[in-house]
Amino acid sequence: MPPDPSRKPAEELTRTERKDLTRGSLLRAALALMGQGRSFTSLGIREIAREAGMVPNAFYRHFKTTDELGLALVEEVSLTLRRLLREARQPHVPQSDVVRQSVQVYFRYVVSNRLQFLFICSERAGGSRALRTAIRHDVAAFTSDMAHDIRRLGLFPDLSPESLHLVCGLMVTSMLAVAPEILDLPPDQPALAAQMTDATVQQLHIILMGAAGWKDRPATRAPA
Amino acid sequence: MPPDPSRKPAEELTRTERKDLTRGSLLRAALALMGQGRSFTSLGIREIAREAGMVPNAFYRHFKTTDELGLALVEEVSLTLRRLLREARQPHVPQSDVVRQSVQVYFRYVVSNRLQFLFICSERAGGSRALRTAIRHDVAAFTSDMAHDIRRLGLFPDLSPESLHLVCGLMVTSMLAVAPEILDLPPDQPALAAQMTDATVQQLHIILMGAAGWKDRPATRAPA
Repeated sequence: MPPDPSRKPAEELTRTERKDLTRGSLLRAALALMGQGRSFTSLGIREIAREAGMVPNAFYRHFKTTDELGLALVEEVSLTLRRLLREARQPHVPQSDVVRQSVQVYFRYVVSNRLQFLFICSERAGGSRALRTAIRHDVAAFTSDMAHDIRRLGLFPDLSPESLHLVCGLMVTSMLAVAPEILDLPPDQPALAAQMTDATVQQLHIILMGAAGWKDRPATRAPA
Repeated sequence: MPPDPSRKPAEELTRTERKDLTRGSLLRAALALMGQGRSFTSLGIREIAREAGMVPNAFYRHFKTTDELGLALVEEVSLTLRRLLREARQPHVPQSDVVRQSVQVYFRYVVSNRLQFLFICSERAGGSRALRTAIRHDVAAFTSDMAHDIRRLGLFPDLSPESLHLVCGLMVTSMLAVAPEILDLPPDQPALAAQMTDATVQQLHIILMGAAGWKDRPATRAPA
């Protein structure tokens, strides 16, 4: 692994490292402002730059608009989480543990990326259509990853691709919905966190149980 | 039904009718500001009053804080929707239609209460803990209503109360998650709306299928 550029003396940084550092500062600055209760759409380029300790023009060396910065934030969260969740579904993980491991990986990731998740959960229904669309695309990407891995594990061979997509969509939605609740858990009550983990694991198993019994008949004829 | 007080000449209004009208104006004003992309926590009492065409002091005759106004908005949406959904689950509705009717009632309600749902969906993970908690309590109330109606209809007699609660929680969460997508549907494409209705109906049936097969064993031993 290359040494962390933020720990090098400034004069030893390459041009690219310096650029990455200022870009990162702008992302952190926007998150910090939203962490104070501001909505993403209310943020201006000037104040993001000010919060990052830069002149406004420095912003434009990295992003054309605040939406472009928001999209970078969404991408940053989702790329790492997608990798972590795919790892939890590798064939060498015992099948009985896949759901619980995924939920645990996810809960830990949410807690250690608090501001990013508050941002994503609230901008999912927020004022910027570009961001809403990007978050929706990412939710679709998580859904496709999961469907792909379920096929690879040979589960639910009778389920049509459309129904498998709906099943995975339910699981992704349930996990995303629990993020704000995870973030509101009091840190000194691990029993509550364990209870929330168990409930989420059971909910995912209920969905998988539904997938196992699903027969791709028209929805109106399924049991009420 | 009593005549709509907003259509009466001002001098004929009773004191209570006048009070209800100004309270309603304040609620509408806050929604209008949020419809312009502002977050709830960024709203001040002065500007809500100004948007409603009132002096700031008028605000305090109705609400002590902006949080109190936000709680009133949450309550307004959820009381009506709870009633509508419970009606769709009455025993005289054919069981095979209950899910589809509920989804249709809900989609119509979301579309005709656009600003309210944008507010609820984004404040569910927003900056006010009082509002997040209130929305969570309401989601729990919808979940309990549904569990109660499912018991009354005699469905899933083997499911423990805890598991029934998780099943209903999944259904409520899935419906809430689709609200921002309903609101982003282009109004001139009814086929997309119909497709989204069908997908939601099928997802709820998958959850119900899971509930029918669920055996209340420890979650770690359920199929992966």
